[in-house]
Amino acid sequence: MSADEEKPSLPVSFEQLAELEDDFEQVDLELTRVQDKLTKDLYVKREKIIADIPHFWNSVFEVAPEEFEHAFKETDGELLLALKNLFVTRFDLPNGDPRSFSIKWEFEENPFFEDSVLEKKFIYRQSTKGDVSGLVSEPVKIHWKPGKDLTNGLTDLVLKVHAEEKAGKADEETDAKKELKKKIEDTPLGDLSFFTWFAFRGPRITEEEHKESLKKEEEKRQLRKAGKPVEDDEMEEDEDEDDLFDKAYEYEPYPAADDQALCIAEDIWPDAIKLYLQSQEDDILSEFDDLDDDEDEEMEEDDKAEPASKKRKA
Amino acid sequence: MSADEEKPSLPVSFEQLAELEDDFEQVDLELTRVQDKLTKDLYVKREKIIADIPHFWNSVFEVAPEEFEHAFKETDGELLLALKNLFVTRFDLPNGDPRSFSIKWEFEENPFFEDSVLEKKFIYRQSTKGDVSGLVSEPVKIHWKPGKDLTNGLTDLVLKVHAEEKAGKADEETDAKKELKKKIEDTPLGDLSFFTWFAFRGPRITEEEHKESLKKEEEKRQLRKAGKPVEDDEMEEDEDEDDLFDKAYEYEPYPAADDQALCIAEDIWPDAIKLYLQSQEDDILSEFDDLDDDEDEEMEEDDKAEPASKKRKA
Repeated sequence: MSADEEKPSLPVSFEQLAELEDDFEQVDLELTRVQDKLTKDLYVKREKIIADIPHFWNSVFEVAPEEFEHAFKETDGELLLALKNLFVTRFDLPNGDPRSFSIKWEFEENPFFEDSVLEKKFIYRQSTKGDVSGLVSEPVKIHWKPGKDLTNGLTDLVLKVHAEEKAGKADEETDAKKELKKKIEDTPLGDLSFFTWFAFRGPRITEEEHKESLKKEEEKRQLRKAGKPVEDDEMEEDEDEDDLFDKAYEYEPYPAADDQALCIAEDIWPDAIKLYLQSQEDDILSEFDDLDDDEDEEMEEDDKAEPASKKRKA
Repeated sequence: MSADEEKPSLPVSFEQLAELEDDFEQVDLELTRVQDKLTKDLYVKREKIIADIPHFWNSVFEVAPEEFEHAFKETDGELLLALKNLFVTRFDLPNGDPRSFSIKWEFEENPFFEDSVLEKKFIYRQSTKGDVSGLVSEPVKIHWKPGKDLTNGLTDLVLKVHAEEKAGKADEETDAKKELKKKIEDTPLGDLSFFTWFAFRGPRITEEEHKESLKKEEEKRQLRKAGKPVEDDEMEEDEDEDDLFDKAYEYEPYPAADDQALCIAEDIWPDAIKLYLQSQEDDILSEFDDLDDDEDEEMEEDDKAEPASKKRKA
């Protein structure tokens, strides 16, 4: 295919496309609201059923999408075996923003930490500086047992820096900040525990700025609907956006956390049963592989097993 | 991660999981209905805006998902430049099945065929033989200009076989069938025109069988809801399913058509603007590449160009 012969400059205005995209986004938000309403009870029903399946969520994470490739280190895996339950809630619904959600992790007694529940909230915020948005989160305190901190002090350090910033030292180069920065630099990716995920903070967009941005957005929307010109601040945005994220990521030991959180909320959570059945099929297939290596082993074991799910054609 | 120490056989019944999956599927269908209702007017509005953009759909297909990799041959590309408009409709809504849809292709005058509109319907059907479903379609007649048939007679042959089957010769090994089978075998994948897509028929599931299957499904649903045992015909299904698709694919020159149709309906159609903007960015980037090779060319052209879309963080 080649359309290069006559390369058109865009013959419709960006305003028209922006308005259209905005319309579609509003519909998407509405659909998430409807979906939340229609599935709420089903997820509670599911929770009861999978409570009887040992290591359900651990198996699900074994076949999770690529966002979780290499995410779990060996000791993380031991800890994940103690994961009893996981629950995603769009806590701001029915009236608030469908883009905010929380992920609640319930653990059995385990050798690593004292907590039985770790809940992390991801709050959707958009900046007044252009078309920039992100998930903002408070770092979650993990009560590690002595000598068992898989994050090697990273989660506690982030909490310390966070507390300092809240106490008005956001622009100060404190000792804790220096230590955190050095620890981040010194930690090889291969040694970074998944549980550092709980320390994620995201871009520093305050609730105030978010509300101001929503207001600005709504004003633009009204201007567009009235056919009036809308001021285009696309150029300055780029720098501000980079700045916003760079500043946050300087003290962020686990910058992939928001993408992984979205992956849990949008893929793993709704598809959990399918993923679990897939993990069981994978186990059966690898058992067959083992069998090939050792033909003397009895076959009854495998004959009982049967592919759990059937892929539909459409 | 390793949960292999104690591999559990499934401690909950397949019935429970099947019921749950069925519940979620019903919600998905309902969501498609709501989505259709909420987006209907927006797609009409979009159609009007993109009508002013030359080669819009051609550009979209240039960055289409992997389902369309290698789908378009060089001459297909020439023909695609004449593609004026594309429209997806879930024609069975609001009251019917949201899984059925049609794709309407509108063409300008072109050297290849006389048609200005080619519309292909994909009808969701499920079989009574187990958990098997698919998209069924009638082959679409393309009025090729003399010597211009890009499919080398394949679309016409499928139409002939289809007409014979309708005339009661479904189990006969006719000359047309033999010829079609041989032509399919003799056509290298690299020579197969995308326009053979219009000949796709899918599994031979009649409307009658589909309705019977829906009835059976509803009966099972009621039994499950009443807590009664549901007959499990999982074993026999496997063979029947293979049989159903093998039989159809024997005379199917373009078996990927249903996956591509789904890709259009679920990805390309809703994301068309994003894909178009992405194709324009790609063009700009490749212009920069050209520029690197030839530093003497004037730069004004590129300075005007600016990335069209901004990827949001969340």
